[in-house]
Amino acid sequence: MQTPVEAAASLLQSYARAVLDKDVQAFADLYHPDVCIFDTWGVWSYDDAQAWAGMAREWFAALPATERVVVTWDGLQARQFGDALSVQAFLTYTAMTDQGEKIRAMTNRLSWVVQRDGDALQVVHEHTSAPADHESGKVILQR
Amino acid sequence: MQTPVEAAASLLQSYARAVLDKDVQAFADLYHPDVCIFDTWGVWSYDDAQAWAGMAREWFAALPATERVVVTWDGLQARQFGDALSVQAFLTYTAMTDQGEKIRAMTNRLSWVVQRDGDALQVVHEHTSAPADHESGKVILQR
Repeated sequence: MQTPVEAAASLLQSYARAVLDKDVQAFADLYHPDVCIFDTWGVWSYDDAQAWAGMAREWFAALPATERVVVTWDGLQARQFGDALSVQAFLTYTAMTDQGEKIRAMTNRLSWVVQRDGDALQVVHEHTSAPADHESGKVILQR
Repeated sequence: MQTPVEAAASLLQSYARAVLDKDVQAFADLYHPDVCIFDTWGVWSYDDAQAWAGMAREWFAALPATERVVVTWDGLQARQFGDALSVQAFLTYTAMTDQGEKIRAMTNRLSWVVQRDGDALQVVHEHTSAPADHESGKVILQR
C-alpha cells in the first residue's frame, strides 16, 4: 500500500490531469458524493459533488480553447488517521497557451480530507484559499 | 464519550473562551506543537504552535483594553476518522465594547483536523478563510 504522501501525490496527479484535460467527469470522480468544499472564489461552500462539478463545468468552459491550466504543487504533507488522510499543499495553477507559453499563474493553499479504501481515494472535504492582505482586503495570489 | 459534533463544539467553546479572555496560553493549548495553520490573514502558513501563539499574542495585544471579541459559529459538521475528527464550521468574530455594543463583525470558514485521545483534543491542522470576489480580489467577510 502507498504511504500517505504517495497516495496524496497520486490523487493530486489525477486532479492535475482532470484540470489539464478540462474533463468534468474525471474531476468530479475525485470527490465523494457528499463532499463539502470551501473554495477560494466567490462562494461560501459547495455542499455536494454535483454542485462542485457545476463549478468545474463553468471553469473549464470559461477557458479559451487555446488555453490550458497546469497544476503543480509543493510543500505536500499527508498524514493517515484511521481510513482517512489529512493532506496539505500549496497548489499553483498556471494558464498556458497551446504553444506552451505562460499566460498567468496563481498559488492557493489546499487542505484535503480524503477517505481511503486501499488505494481508492475520494475527497470528502476540500478547503482552498489564499491569505488576504490586512490593509487592502485583497487575496495574495503569489507566494 | 462525546459524539464528534459534541467534541467539536466543546473545542470551539474553549477557542471562543480563550479569544474572549485574550488568553494566549489557553489559546495555544488548543493546538498540537506541530500544528500547520493556513490562516485568513497575511501569512501563507504557520508551521508550529509557537509561531501561531505569536500571532495570537499580537492579535490580542492590538485590541483596545475596552474591546473584546466574541466568537460564535453555525453550520458545524464533524466526522470521526480513526483517532481524529474532521471539523467544518462558519465562525463569526464580533468585536464588542465592554458596554456590550457591537463594533464590527466578520465571518470565516473553518476547517480543523483534530487529534482525539478520549475527551482530550488537539488541533493538528487549521484552515480559515473567506471567499474572494472574482472582480475585486477582495475577501467577502459577511455571509
